[in-house]
Amino acid sequence: MTDNAVAPRTPAPLTLLGTGAMGTVLARTWLAAGHEVTVWNRTPARAQALAAEGAVVVRSAAEAVAANRLVIVCLLDDASVGDALDEAVLAGRDLVNLTTGTPGEGRTRAAWAEARGARFLDGGIMAVPPMIGVADSGGYVFYSGSPELFEEHRDTLAVPAGTRWVGADPGFAALYDVALLSAMNGMFAGMLHAFALVRPEDIAPKDFAPLLADWLTAMAPAVHQTADRLESGDHTRNVVSSLAMQAAGVPTFLRTAEEQHVSPELLAPYLKLMERRVAQGHGEEDGTGMIELLDLRRGA
Amino acid sequence: MTDNAVAPRTPAPLTLLGTGAMGTVLARTWLAAGHEVTVWNRTPARAQALAAEGAVVVRSAAEAVAANRLVIVCLLDDASVGDALDEAVLAGRDLVNLTTGTPGEGRTRAAWAEARGARFLDGGIMAVPPMIGVADSGGYVFYSGSPELFEEHRDTLAVPAGTRWVGADPGFAALYDVALLSAMNGMFAGMLHAFALVRPEDIAPKDFAPLLADWLTAMAPAVHQTADRLESGDHTRNVVSSLAMQAAGVPTFLRTAEEQHVSPELLAPYLKLMERRVAQGHGEEDGTGMIELLDLRRGA
Repeated sequence: MTDNAVAPRTPAPLTLLGTGAMGTVLARTWLAAGHEVTVWNRTPARAQALAAEGAVVVRSAAEAVAANRLVIVCLLDDASVGDALDEAVLAGRDLVNLTTGTPGEGRTRAAWAEARGARFLDGGIMAVPPMIGVADSGGYVFYSGSPELFEEHRDTLAVPAGTRWVGADPGFAALYDVALLSAMNGMFAGMLHAFALVRPEDIAPKDFAPLLADWLTAMAPAVHQTADRLESGDHTRNVVSSLAMQAAGVPTFLRTAEEQHVSPELLAPYLKLMERRVAQGHGEEDGTGMIELLDLRRGA
Repeated sequence: MTDNAVAPRTPAPLTLLGTGAMGTVLARTWLAAGHEVTVWNRTPARAQALAAEGAVVVRSAAEAVAANRLVIVCLLDDASVGDALDEAVLAGRDLVNLTTGTPGEGRTRAAWAEARGARFLDGGIMAVPPMIGVADSGGYVFYSGSPELFEEHRDTLAVPAGTRWVGADPGFAALYDVALLSAMNGMFAGMLHAFALVRPEDIAPKDFAPLLADWLTAMAPAVHQTADRLESGDHTRNVVSSLAMQAAGVPTFLRTAEEQHVSPELLAPYLKLMERRVAQGHGEEDGTGMIELLDLRRGA
């Protein structure tokens, strides 16, 4: 073949370790796109279901790894990854680890894989299983680690969900993943507190929901002002509502929770952090300055 | 005049008590729209600045209240409202209280005002001063209390910001206000934790910000699924990611914070609540079920 540019590409064969909820939908998406998929799961029954859909089901992780150069790993946790790959020959393999973990686990696992002759890419999945393989679902996967591996398998990796490259540091995919999910948990905690506050009243949740969703959507771009202050290192830059003014509202937040018989446990830590920062003489700052109190490198 | 429908309306004269940051921009917006505005402030110098812009500045709150039927109150807190109005004659007045407070304070103040012969409307301002008088700023004011007062002065109240009527219960404006701001604080706490996680790395805040803003914006509509579950009373309805699955990620969140030297104080309470709810046997639910643990009426 002399003209690769116009030749139709044959979908690359690949191996998938782990057929839990996420692994199963990943396998289905690749099978549907014409990839030959070899699967292994610690509990064989869960992999067997995919045989009917065309997957090659094998009995050991070592056998699965031997079958294909591209090996996708989607297991319970990093310890499971070590267990599964313990007896596999990794030399010459391209390992893509979609198992949830910490940045440190990603970095350690990358060094471990490279020492065994494999290239390594870590992935952080920003989607739930029903979003996999669905165009415009909004889901995507962060990737970091070997740029060569990512470039070579980019089209295959893009089959189940959009891809976002975040750097050669194999810890970054997990870092971005955990950072965004942590922020989401904060937002969900705020939502839960808000619904709890209106719950004792004759207010239908579905009437309250649009106000809450619109408000949070309108406030999300505050992220950009926060970034701007962090870039400049100046927490007093373009302050609209000073921390002192915000902190003046703390008693109203806490008394309202009390009046509505709502535990303040999800809200109180942020309010306390405001008050601590103001007490340290930073009342003229924006809330961004509270990041100094979270930063344990500075002995806060 | 026989045809009110086409007659140009004369902007109604009004009184404004309190010329802090918010009161000052409110006064300016009404003055600019042609209203005669009588202002009073406990510290006279802050009101005096508005005289040059056409405001009538008076020496006592009682005098200001006597000047106009429509009296807008925008003071520091509910105690300041009581102090300011203590010697004013309220009979026949239409009192619109934009002072930040709790739902209980709104209800008590409404009864207090009505006992003195005034109609009462409470307002919760969902805006910061720079958004006042700016079309499409996204800012607005929740109103609750006397529907007659609201209807009669609706056009005047709409001058500084959009209006949202939330019911005859004079506590509702404050309740909606505090609920939405509480949810926002949760989102801001999540944002702060996310920025703190990436801070030790060579990641520019302005490169990280769009990912974070887009993710939060994409997740905000989860509010509607939460409302749907609360309406149905069934926390297992349309569960995509069960609480048990979410709780399985808790160690990853906490270890990542530790690896990145970030205090977990803003994140931990929500993670602990997840684990408590799962431990109570509700792992198959969505996160919505955690609202039962916040509800202190049920002895949680």
